[in-house]
Amino acid sequence: MTTAELPTIDPIAEAIAVADQYTEPEPALEGEPTAAKDILIIDYSGDLEKVWATMILASTSAAMGVKTRVFVTFWGLQVFVKDSKRITGENWMQKMLSFMQRPGISHRKLSKMNFMGMGPWMMGVLAKKYGVASPKELLEAAQALGVEFIPCQMTMDMFGLKREDMIDGMSEPVGAATVIGLISENSIPLFI
Amino acid sequence: MTTAELPTIDPIAEAIAVADQYTEPEPALEGEPTAAKDILIIDYSGDLEKVWATMILASTSAAMGVKTRVFVTFWGLQVFVKDSKRITGENWMQKMLSFMQRPGISHRKLSKMNFMGMGPWMMGVLAKKYGVASPKELLEAAQALGVEFIPCQMTMDMFGLKREDMIDGMSEPVGAATVIGLISENSIPLFI
Amino acid sequence: MTTAELPTIDPIAEAIAVADQYTEPEPALEGEPTAAKDILIIDYSGDLEKVWATMILASTSAAMGVKTRVFVTFWGLQVFVKDSKRITGENWMQKMLSFMQRPGISHRKLSKMNFMGMGPWMMGVLAKKYGVASPKELLEAAQALGVEFIPCQMTMDMFGLKREDMIDGMSEPVGAATVIGLISENSIPLFI
Repeated sequence: MTTAELPTIDPIAEAIAVADQYTEPEPALEGEPTAAKDILIIDYSGDLEKVWATMILASTSAAMGVKTRVFVTFWGLQVFVKDSKRITGENWMQKMLSFMQRPGISHRKLSKMNFMGMGPWMMGVLAKKYGVASPKELLEAAQALGVEFIPCQMTMDMFGLKREDMIDGMSEPVGAATVIGLISENSIPLFI
Repeated sequence: MTTAELPTIDPIAEAIAVADQYTEPEPALEGEPTAAKDILIIDYSGDLEKVWATMILASTSAAMGVKTRVFVTFWGLQVFVKDSKRITGENWMQKMLSFMQRPGISHRKLSKMNFMGMGPWMMGVLAKKYGVASPKELLEAAQALGVEFIPCQMTMDMFGLKREDMIDGMSEPVGAATVIGLISENSIPLFI
Repeated sequence: MTTAELPTIDPIAEAIAVADQYTEPEPALEGEPTAAKDILIIDYSGDLEKVWATMILASTSAAMGVKTRVFVTFWGLQVFVKDSKRITGENWMQKMLSFMQRPGISHRKLSKMNFMGMGPWMMGVLAKKYGVASPKELLEAAQALGVEFIPCQMTMDMFGLKREDMIDGMSEPVGAATVIGLISENSIPLFI
């Protein structure tokens, strides 16, 4: 198989197509549908497979018209550093942490079966072959569809990350109180 | 201790007994109980301890009369491949992935302290000693109690899994849109 | 930087201050606020970063007046063994498990970049530098603010843990049925 044989992917169209599959209501659903709910993903992990899950759920949710927010914190925040950045942070400890684990959505590793990058490479090839968009493509789709990506202020401080280190289009950093506020109102949380 | 001294376990009776413990209402519960809710477990991990958590919560929930669905995706889907299958997939990459990490609920590893299988073996012995059913027994109980196990279509495609590779009694594969649809209606999600 | 330069931290005041940041309502929040909800954290992991997330969310939530419960189970239960205990359990397998992974909130490891303890040490220094309380300080704050920490009976049995092994102030051990009961009533679950 050569790259030329791989299908081209339009992730926004794909997210909308995935959402459009959901035309028929679930037959077995009991209970009254309640007021429209928001979805709040707490994106805690920087592992490739978890980032993928976050992006698939967020872009699908937004394509279905559900208000969707993603709070990115701890390892998860490293994913939203620009791919072009190599070393981040202000003091040697922060610089060392970024050196040991390269930030950016295109440099994620699997939590298992990473095999020096062979696992992620195989996942990428299989995803392309079966028409699944990459995490980066899904992130762009999610942003285009209106998903809010909200950085954790405390993580920004601890890792010495600055706004100019992060990808464009993120919301203002907030703290845990905003997360609890959203949950105790109408947001359904998914801790990924 | 010999195997002969270990208690025999009937996981359905156990799940029902666990559920029956919950006869007395929680004293400190404030607020009006709202309409009956469903539970939707998103089973993302193939690690032994996470599979155990999924099966205990799903079988208990069903035994308490709560409509319970488990969406099995990514590493979690490997758990539902038949124990007898060794290599799955259609191309060499998919075959290699299944070879590197043996699928099937009886071949799960701990995410830590695995020690070449000694950790899971000790967990198994301790579980039996204290009357806790194995993940496989709990899966059978959950199915008997009406839990729906729903495979993720995208994962089926990426790993080259076919319906005949999977255990009996699973639902039709669906996509992320069905998950979001359930959450935005009346299902409480647990991402495990 | 010497330890003398580090700020002193009052975690209860900090949790309340974090909560007080949330004075202004979120501008983009749609939908009617529904009845007050409880928060139920299922604390499954013993990893330093997950314990930190649990403690930050629980103490902030309680400081905001939200009824907050933390069900501690599997690896998560090891965190609530007294720091002074070294070996726990009644039989050799249980003793060996506690020997291989030291229990207690002050002995947590990172799930990645642990580097023989250097990662957790750097995290600790950075946290102090930026005024973030340690997991242990946050636990004390959470207890002072009324968070209920509820041990899992099944995990107590499997690991051979006794009430006198655990920190003071924990609730009576319960099982999965209580967790499902809370979720199916009014508690929003976070599986961490």
